[in-house]
Amino acid sequence: MDRPSLDLPAAFTQPPASPPLPVPGFDAAGVACGIKPGGQLDLALIASPVPCVAAAVFTRNAFPAAPVLHDRALLRFNAERIHGVVVNSGCANACTGTQGRANARRMAEWTEQALDAGEHTVFVMSTGVIGVQLPMERLATGIPQLVARLRPDGWQEAAAAIMTTDRFPKWASATLEIHGHPVTLTGIAKGAGMIHPDMATMLAVVVTDAAIAQPVLQQALVQACDHSFNRISVDGDTSTNDTVLLLANGLAGHPAIDQAQGPAYTAFLDALTQVAQELAKAIVRNGEGVTRFVTLQVEGAMDDHQAHQVANAIATSPLVKTAFYGGDPNWGRIVCAVGYAGVQVVPERTRLTVRRGEPQDGQPELELFRDGTPTGYAEEEAAAIFADHRITVRVDLGLGTGRATVWTGDLSHGYVTLNGEYRT
Amino acid sequence: MDRPSLDLPAAFTQPPASPPLPVPGFDAAGVACGIKPGGQLDLALIASPVPCVAAAVFTRNAFPAAPVLHDRALLRFNAERIHGVVVNSGCANACTGTQGRANARRMAEWTEQALDAGEHTVFVMSTGVIGVQLPMERLATGIPQLVARLRPDGWQEAAAAIMTTDRFPKWASATLEIHGHPVTLTGIAKGAGMIHPDMATMLAVVVTDAAIAQPVLQQALVQACDHSFNRISVDGDTSTNDTVLLLANGLAGHPAIDQAQGPAYTAFLDALTQVAQELAKAIVRNGEGVTRFVTLQVEGAMDDHQAHQVANAIATSPLVKTAFYGGDPNWGRIVCAVGYAGVQVVPERTRLTVRRGEPQDGQPELELFRDGTPTGYAEEEAAAIFADHRITVRVDLGLGTGRATVWTGDLSHGYVTLNGEYRT
Repeated sequence: MDRPSLDLPAAFTQPPASPPLPVPGFDAAGVACGIKPGGQLDLALIASPVPCVAAAVFTRNAFPAAPVLHDRALLRFNAERIHGVVVNSGCANACTGTQGRANARRMAEWTEQALDAGEHTVFVMSTGVIGVQLPMERLATGIPQLVARLRPDGWQEAAAAIMTTDRFPKWASATLEIHGHPVTLTGIAKGAGMIHPDMATMLAVVVTDAAIAQPVLQQALVQACDHSFNRISVDGDTSTNDTVLLLANGLAGHPAIDQAQGPAYTAFLDALTQVAQELAKAIVRNGEGVTRFVTLQVEGAMDDHQAHQVANAIATSPLVKTAFYGGDPNWGRIVCAVGYAGVQVVPERTRLTVRRGEPQDGQPELELFRDGTPTGYAEEEAAAIFADHRITVRVDLGLGTGRATVWTGDLSHGYVTLNGEYRT
Repeated sequence: MDRPSLDLPAAFTQPPASPPLPVPGFDAAGVACGIKPGGQLDLALIASPVPCVAAAVFTRNAFPAAPVLHDRALLRFNAERIHGVVVNSGCANACTGTQGRANARRMAEWTEQALDAGEHTVFVMSTGVIGVQLPMERLATGIPQLVARLRPDGWQEAAAAIMTTDRFPKWASATLEIHGHPVTLTGIAKGAGMIHPDMATMLAVVVTDAAIAQPVLQQALVQACDHSFNRISVDGDTSTNDTVLLLANGLAGHPAIDQAQGPAYTAFLDALTQVAQELAKAIVRNGEGVTRFVTLQVEGAMDDHQAHQVANAIATSPLVKTAFYGGDPNWGRIVCAVGYAGVQVVPERTRLTVRRGEPQDGQPELELFRDGTPTGYAEEEAAAIFADHRITVRVDLGLGTGRATVWTGDLSHGYVTLNGEYRT
């Protein structure tokens, strides 16, 4: 009962058409070291011989995985002398106790030694099954191989090596000029399941040659995440391992950005947000079993927070998501989700419109619900919109100026198959 | 990819073995009046020639359906002179504006006239598709037929007539003695989808011949719901139509219960809670696509509310629910859900145990997680427990005395099939 992937547009099944841009001073690589049983790539490294300033955002799950604990401490104590990040897939190193902590630390140390970098200079990320210890002997042989493969154009294989149930590797790049100096950003990400705001289950690494002070870099990352990774939802689960890491090595040579305002900061933030949004939206299109990409726009709320809450209620409703899967214009389920979002709404003021594609595609809107009742729209017009693989749903609460956009997918047989059978 | 129902224990596919008990003074009936296209039963009536006191609990959804608005007003203005409730399936009469309100009112009036009861004496409930007006001409012919069929043993057909995607009709009865007088309670319910605490998408009607003051009846209903209907979750959606109605006609003849304390009240509350729990648990077993019945016991929380929040996070996690479906002892997902429940937890103090069956079955427990790490349990023992159709999961947060029990089901291909194709 899985929809064959062949039915899906390329953006749901294939990596971006344009390759990731190399970033001066950064190398990347991926190898298969045997953590995944099938021999797929499962270990990635991103490294910069020039020390970087680092910023990071982590899961708020109360059971943070061992690598998250390692990285939080590293960010606190040595965020300005970072040389890279090593990432494994196939094992989350979560719920693994003191042994898991020690293993995360050893994974970083082995990488620091193989890179000939100083102590406390390498971040660690893990993704995969929870409650299983890392096979350290595989890492012991894999890490030196990984360092030997490092090269400026190794991004695609690094992106492939961090995948779990992802269908395709995800990357995004952007360029800008700061004070006449060209600056590049390139990021990779993995997603698939356990995807929900407040750091969805996902890992992302973005690097740049921009020169920027650490606190400013951290602020830029938080702002960018608020409009990208924290605005997506695949299944409402917030994982133990979510991490977004941003490294900046300053090689672009422009005067360093030392405050979170002004044109240079804004230009950098825009480029970073663009990369983060591209990665976040790719994570949704590649969400476990996802066959529809839905842009939820909520406006007219009392404030932005309430708008976000309404969008999340819609994005996490299994009934709404299965209706999207079925291509069923069952908008009553959307209105119902608005009704239990727990924010102020007035049925008679609420309007619901839908259209094909993403908002920027400029397709005409069809109004379905208004004045507390269906609008008398033509059923076949609604059906044609819901048959598309990209749909935009706009809810206007008619009360204030609060607004939020959330990107989400459908809930399909593919999701159930993947997650009913993932581990065993 | 649907599991054939044949694999499921009888409690997942068949109505209770013992028939519902008649309650003195109450009649019930169900007919097919043509709201459902397939000719199934779709209109039910429960009536008492003797006026009843009524109590009711309604959805907190901000888009309450027209019958909910009607019933709320009726409960406020005439709760001590009620003669019955008419219920249709196949159309929710929700998001139907002023016309929907008028239709709900007419449905009640026609029933009041056919029963020869006074004005403002009949409740109305509707369940089915949202955003479609009731076919009033079908009700005009159906209601007189329904009244003609009323009889003391009509409960099974009434229970069948309120079903939507339910696999089987649900009823429960209990008896008790109050001051030496035998008292009976009988209830029917429908569930299936949109099931979540705070009045899940469900309708239930319970009647009794107990003699009890209206405010006391209301308090008993709220207390019973807090330990039954508000403790179940199928898919986390709270519907526009949820209603639990309790009618008491006083024919048992004992001195009326006029305060919410003392042995008579307690005995009544216990019997009511038992009926409500039986109905609520049947709703879970018959949840859309449900193949597993899971009892979630959370204890050691800082307070009962936090315990409930943790249980709900587990009960609504798609990853946990698909693991249950797959019979996969992937307990890491349960721990992960505990971690994002938003309450105080300490990984090193959290313990997770599982066992077959329901708690009262007394099966031995298997501890899976403790001291922040897996316990070293035998994988095949865990697999055997998760292979059962009834599982009890106990999470001890090790912090306080707060506790909560929630009943939930799995997330299966059957759920996706039903809800991807329900309307079109």
